[in-house]
Amino acid sequence: MSRVWNFSAGPAALPLPVLERAQRELLDWNASGASVMEQSHRGKRFIAMAHKVDADLRELMGIPDNYAVLFEQGGATQHFAQIPMNLAREGDSADYIITGHWSEKAANEGAPYVHVNVAATSKAESFLRMPARETWQLDPKAAYVHIATNETIHGVQFKQVPEVGDVPLVADMSSDILSGPVDVSRYGLIYAGAQKNIGPSGLVLIIIRRDLLERPIRPMAKIFRYLEHAANDSMLNTPNTWGWYLAGLTFEWLKDNGGLVAMAERNRQKSELLYATIDGSGGYYRNPIDPPVRSRMNVPFTLHDSALDAAFLQESEAAGLMALKGHKALGGMRASLYNAVPLEAVHALVDFMHDFAHRHG
Amino acid sequence: MSRVWNFSAGPAALPLPVLERAQRELLDWNASGASVMEQSHRGKRFIAMAHKVDADLRELMGIPDNYAVLFEQGGATQHFAQIPMNLAREGDSADYIITGHWSEKAANEGAPYVHVNVAATSKAESFLRMPARETWQLDPKAAYVHIATNETIHGVQFKQVPEVGDVPLVADMSSDILSGPVDVSRYGLIYAGAQKNIGPSGLVLIIIRRDLLERPIRPMAKIFRYLEHAANDSMLNTPNTWGWYLAGLTFEWLKDNGGLVAMAERNRQKSELLYATIDGSGGYYRNPIDPPVRSRMNVPFTLHDSALDAAFLQESEAAGLMALKGHKALGGMRASLYNAVPLEAVHALVDFMHDFAHRHG
Repeated sequence: MSRVWNFSAGPAALPLPVLERAQRELLDWNASGASVMEQSHRGKRFIAMAHKVDADLRELMGIPDNYAVLFEQGGATQHFAQIPMNLAREGDSADYIITGHWSEKAANEGAPYVHVNVAATSKAESFLRMPARETWQLDPKAAYVHIATNETIHGVQFKQVPEVGDVPLVADMSSDILSGPVDVSRYGLIYAGAQKNIGPSGLVLIIIRRDLLERPIRPMAKIFRYLEHAANDSMLNTPNTWGWYLAGLTFEWLKDNGGLVAMAERNRQKSELLYATIDGSGGYYRNPIDPPVRSRMNVPFTLHDSALDAAFLQESEAAGLMALKGHKALGGMRASLYNAVPLEAVHALVDFMHDFAHRHG
Repeated sequence: MSRVWNFSAGPAALPLPVLERAQRELLDWNASGASVMEQSHRGKRFIAMAHKVDADLRELMGIPDNYAVLFEQGGATQHFAQIPMNLAREGDSADYIITGHWSEKAANEGAPYVHVNVAATSKAESFLRMPARETWQLDPKAAYVHIATNETIHGVQFKQVPEVGDVPLVADMSSDILSGPVDVSRYGLIYAGAQKNIGPSGLVLIIIRRDLLERPIRPMAKIFRYLEHAANDSMLNTPNTWGWYLAGLTFEWLKDNGGLVAMAERNRQKSELLYATIDGSGGYYRNPIDPPVRSRMNVPFTLHDSALDAAFLQESEAAGLMALKGHKALGGMRASLYNAVPLEAVHALVDFMHDFAHRHG
C-alpha cells in the first residue's frame, strides 16, 4: 500500500493515525466484540464515547456552557434551510454576507424560510476580496447575520470575526473549523459539514447558543428542530454513529498534537509556503485573491497557460499528489490544506510545481 | 479478538465479510492511495462505485426502470416529514395504517405537512395483531397510503402487500428491506434507514416511482426535494460516502450468498427456530403476537417472571450474546435477526435459553 498526498477539497484527507486506529478496531470496538457501527447509539459504550467527544470538542474550541453541541446529518446544505427554520419566524428578515459560492448558496436555500437581505457582497468583484465591514448594510432587526468564514471554492477567508452588534452571528465554518482558535462566544451559531476538518461526510456539527433554541418558530416536524435535538443529546433519532466516532478520534488526534494553536501555526506555514511558491513563480502560477483574505485552507491557482492544465494534473497524480483539479466554477487547480494535510505534503507539492515549471517552461 | 453474536435492533450486526473487506481497504481503497472516506464523491472512482451499487441493488430487488433510487440522510424519521412534503400539497390528506410505534411516529411527524387520516389501527389491541384489510377506511382521494412493513419494536410484519387500488402505497421498510423478495412495482415509494439490513446508520435508501417526483409541492429548499436529488444522482450535496460504500459491499455480499430468495429462507429458518423455542417453553418464554404476523426480523419476548430479566441479560452477555434487552416501551427481551445474523447465532441463543430455563426453572 502506498498512501498519496491528498489535496481533496472534501471529502478530504483524514489524519493517518485516525484511520489506522479505526482500522485496528473495526471488528471489535472497545472490547465489545462488535464494530462501533454495530452498536446501539443508546448503549452504555456509545453514550460514554459521546460524552467524551463532547468534552474533547468543548476543550479544544473553548465552547462555553451556554452553548449546545449537536451532531446532525444532511450536510451544511440542509442546514442552510434549517437555520432560518429554527431562528426566524414567518416574515422575519436575515442579513447575508455573500463572499463566494457557499454563502450565496446559503442565502438561496434559506430564502423559502426567511426574507434574505444581502447586506454585502463581493460578487461584482468575482469574490476576489472581502466587502469591507464599513460597507455592510446591516439591519438591527435582522433575525441573524450569516457569513461563511471560509469559501472552499473561491479561497477567501475571514481573518477576524466581524462585529455585528446584538444580532446573532451565524457562521458556516465547514472548511475552516478547527483550523485555529475561535472565540465561540462571538457567534450565535456555528455549523460545519464534517468532511473537511472533522471526519467523514454525512455528519454536521452545530454549536448553538442555548437561548436561540427557544426562539418561536412556525409549525414543523420535530426532526427539523434544533431544540429537540439538543434536548435529546443528538439522539432524537439514530445518528450517524460512525461519523460521530471518527470525529471523536480526530478530536483526540488534535489534542495529542497541540490543539488548535498548533494547528493554526501548521496551517500558516503550509499556506505561506504554497502562496510564496505561487507568488514567486514569475507569473507561471497565479492566485488572484487579495492577500490579506487568502484562505489558509483552500488555495485555488491557475497556470499561466491553461493548455498545460491536463499535463499538470496527469503528472501531479503520477507523482502521488491527489485531487488538485480546481472546481469547475473557476477551472485551474486547487490545493486544500486541511489539518490532516502535513507540511511534508505541501513541500512535495511545491517541489513538483517548481519541477513542472522548469520542464514545461 | 472475539466477535459476539449481535442481536441489536439497530445499528445492527453487519456481515463479517463486509467488515473484513472494509477493514482491509480502509487506508487504500481501489488502488487510490487514500481511504474511500477521503475521496471526492464527484471523482471518477466514487462515481463508478455508485453506478455499481445502483445496478447491484436494482438486480437484487428487481427494481423497474421507472423507479429512482436515492441515497439520502437524516434517518427514516426525517423522511416521515419529507415524504408528505414531496407527495402532498397543502391541504391534502393521506391514509396511515398504524401497526406499532414506527408507523404511529410516521403519522405524527407527517402531520405538520398533510392531513393524517388514520385509516386503520391496532393500537387498542396493543399492536398484537394487524388490522384486517377489509376494516381499513381508505380514502380514494388520499395523496398516498402509508404502512410500516415491519414494526421493529412491536415485532409485527406484513406478510403480503396490501391492495390499495390506485393510491400510491408508501412503505417504511427500515427493518425488513432486503430480508426477502419484494414486488417493488406494488409500491409508490419504499424507504429504509440503512442501519438494520443495509449498512451503517446515517444513510437512508429511497426507491420512488418517477412520476411521483413530479407532484406539485409547496415552496421549500431544494435540499428537501426528492426530484432534485434524483436529477443529481443523490449528489445534490455531499452524500454519506462511507455509508454508500458499505451498502455496496452489503449488496455484493447478498449477491454472493444467493440474493433475496436465499435470505428469505435463512430468515424463515432463524425466526421459526426462535419462535418454536419460545412457544415450546411451556410458558417460560412468551411472545404474544398473532402468529401469522409475527416478524421474521424482530422477536420480542418476555420471561415468565420479570424478576429474572436482569439475570437473563447478564448471563446472556457473558455467553457472548449481545443486545438482547427489549425496547423500554415493552420491557423484556428482543432478538433482532437481520440478514447479517447467521443461523448459528440463533442456535447459540436458543441453546442459552434452554439452559437458562433449566438452571432458573
